Amino acid sequence: MSAQRPLQQLTKRATTSQCLHLPQKVHHKPRIWQPQKRQMATVVPPVTQNSAGSKGPTAMVFMNMGGPATTDEVGGFLSRLFADGDLIPLGALQGYLGPLISRRRTPKIKKQYASIGGGSPIRKWSEYQAAEMCKILDQTNPDTAPHKPYVAFRYANPLTEEMYNRLLEDGFGKGRGGRAVAFSQYPQYSCSTTGSSLNELWKWRQRLESPTRNPNLTANEAEGSILWSVIDRWPTHPGLVEAFVENITKVLETYPEDIRDKVVILYSAHSLPMSVVNRGDPYPAEVAATVWAVQQRLGRKNPYRLVWQSQVGPSAWLGAQTSDTVKNYVQQGQKDLVLVPIAFTSDHIETLFEIDQEVIHEANELGADGRVRRAESLNGSPTFINALANLAKTHLDAGEICSRQMGLRCPGCKNEKCLAQKQFFMNQGKQDTNAAMTL
Amino acid sequence: MSAQRPLQQLTKRATTSQCLHLPQKVHHKPRIWQPQKRQMATVVPPVTQNSAGSKGPTAMVFMNMGGPATTDEVGGFLSRLFADGDLIPLGALQGYLGPLISRRRTPKIKKQYASIGGGSPIRKWSEYQAAEMCKILDQTNPDTAPHKPYVAFRYANPLTEEMYNRLLEDGFGKGRGGRAVAFSQYPQYSCSTTGSSLNELWKWRQRLESPTRNPNLTANEAEGSILWSVIDRWPTHPGLVEAFVENITKVLETYPEDIRDKVVILYSAHSLPMSVVNRGDPYPAEVAATVWAVQQRLGRKNPYRLVWQSQVGPSAWLGAQTSDTVKNYVQQGQKDLVLVPIAFTSDHIETLFEIDQEVIHEANELGADGRVRRAESLNGSPTFINALANLAKTHLDAGEICSRQMGLRCPGCKNEKCLAQKQFFMNQGKQDTNAAMTL
Repeated sequence: MSAQRPLQQLTKRATTSQCLHLPQKVHHKPRIWQPQKRQMATVVPPVTQNSAGSKGPTAMVFMNMGGPATTDEVGGFLSRLFADGDLIPLGALQGYLGPLISRRRTPKIKKQYASIGGGSPIRKWSEYQAAEMCKILDQTNPDTAPHKPYVAFRYANPLTEEMYNRLLEDGFGKGRGGRAVAFSQYPQYSCSTTGSSLNELWKWRQRLESPTRNPNLTANEAEGSILWSVIDRWPTHPGLVEAFVENITKVLETYPEDIRDKVVILYSAHSLPMSVVNRGDPYPAEVAATVWAVQQRLGRKNPYRLVWQSQVGPSAWLGAQTSDTVKNYVQQGQKDLVLVPIAFTSDHIETLFEIDQEVIHEANELGADGRVRRAESLNGSPTFINALANLAKTHLDAGEICSRQMGLRCPGCKNEKCLAQKQFFMNQGKQDTNAAMTL
Repeated sequence: MSAQRPLQQLTKRATTSQCLHLPQKVHHKPRIWQPQKRQMATVVPPVTQNSAGSKGPTAMVFMNMGGPATTDEVGGFLSRLFADGDLIPLGALQGYLGPLISRRRTPKIKKQYASIGGGSPIRKWSEYQAAEMCKILDQTNPDTAPHKPYVAFRYANPLTEEMYNRLLEDGFGKGRGGRAVAFSQYPQYSCSTTGSSLNELWKWRQRLESPTRNPNLTANEAEGSILWSVIDRWPTHPGLVEAFVENITKVLETYPEDIRDKVVILYSAHSLPMSVVNRGDPYPAEVAATVWAVQQRLGRKNPYRLVWQSQVGPSAWLGAQTSDTVKNYVQQGQKDLVLVPIAFTSDHIETLFEIDQEVIHEANELGADGRVRRAESLNGSPTFINALANLAKTHLDAGEICSRQMGLRCPGCKNEKCLAQKQFFMNQGKQDTNAAMTL
């Protein structure tokens, strides 16, 4: 398959040329699927919505991996997680090994969630962030108002399927058109995270709104499906960087002033299997870009390293490992360490359990004496929520489809779903939007 | 050993706090080694030099790996290269395997150098860049003039030892003090490259100028040794970024205008063994920072990937591999590719042979039809040479010793030479400069 085809279909706009754009003539006007006529048509806003703006309403869909809100949801969460070859590539044995590993790990992981209060706070934070962002957007972007917040998790409730059905119930799609923005809540793009969420979103879009995949759709329903665009990466957005800097500064201020600039900052991101890195996944480089931007904004006062956490299983993962790094430094006498979760924006098991209860506990056992600390996750940070609103505003104002970078498959990608998904999203608003359906 | 000790000795300057600074009182006044008195003393500039400025002369030493200037030098070059555990970690078998591998590879590599004109142009370019930069510095920094250009290669002539002896012959050190700047010509720091060069520089400094290592030194000679400072990394210097952007733009302009923004840019850096990456080497993240900065400056118009070249031997190296990436994309139909050497600044065997003669040749055999091209290396770029001068000027004006980041060992580092070297350079200009000698 050619990765060149979608690239050749890029629209051009000199001023905001880093992104693909919705064609100007159908800007905010979802296309109707008319394979014979191949024409664009104006679509009325969803009927059941209170459309305050001429181009609204707009669904703002926060995509993330999610986490079990209660310990009862751990089993289902893990079984979805280990079934996802985009995240944990187990090859031909995925269907056999995935359930095996998830079943074996469930009791242990249940205990971990119990120890952080009985569940992950990621749903609470995501719903809060999306709702707060939409309030700001309603003010800054009245044309596309009202902005309706949705959350779609990859492995926990609310799942993508649930979110998509809610969209349809709320009056989007099924003949009524309407616009939705898939807003990845992973600042840095990985095929394992944002890519997997987009593959899932594309799958449910096809199942629920594609006439070739869902013969129950009426002709009218098949026509006015939802027009999607994607905010796929934002690793160095100034507001994101500022939000990190605020939280890092806050924790640095807990150290005595005379050693504050000497505290070593360890930016910790979820690791990737080397098979994914070597396939050409853009994530390690984008995480490094975030780290560099944050260090620049901090004034490069503190020495630092980018380290990688949460490796699991026997295969090779990208290092250096966060836990080993902390142990080594503490043993070398470098005890003043600040851990900064740099690739997730809300608290989750990897911060609340792995860093707070495992890594920092082990450091204290080695004599760190409370000098290894963690910067707060962004969670409800107003600076962060303003950054999200600014990102969304820029996206809506510019009529973006997605970034140029999103159109490029990894050099070692063999996943045809990725190609079809990319073609689908990149062609949103164009005549041949449904081309991907026939692949 | 504690990595904290040198960190606790950092001087503080709010305005340029990202770097360690020469103590203000001995700024540009090399210390005399007086273990009993532990005092600083003013040192006269080297006697044999024409010191135009009150603080000059200043030796500007360009450090790089180097390459054989003629095919006759290939054997020696390879034997030094494979003997260097900092670059190619072969463990306890280094002394046995190194010579074996280098002898076996020599005939093949000789042919490669023959095919690029009989030798590496890196000496020519380094000498030119250093000389041109010094001319600019003589204008912008008359206080520290004259600025004298030197080149120290790690594996080829002029070797560090040769450079150091030239410094001594030219009137630096041996009782005459004087100041030298070790200017790494690797924009991004790796322990395998800049770290190895600094270890080598430190070794020869100890052998030639340390009274505890060189009993032939007279008391006077032992006192006024050279005062060293280090420009250790500069991955996103705006002038460097601009120089890359100029050369990328030039090659993009060779493509038809309608596809120019769709050409995929492949930033190619020399890879690292995963053992080095997993030890916590800062290089992958700093290379990614360069790539991100260049893409931002280019306006993020083109899709891109950061890829890694020149993997050798059976152990695991960081990917995706440049050669595989090009093959995969061409086979997928994405033939318009620009390769950008992003971690070396001058042409060398990895650009002139590996990219130009191997990778691009293979692409054409797969039907790339001349559409895979390479951005010129920075070589004699005036923008690049101005960037070097700007970096050096900032360093000299601020009285920097080195970056804060240089003081932090890799979390998995077991190399005590690294610790001693870091302590030596970070303590330059301080009373306990010679502390490292006793390690």
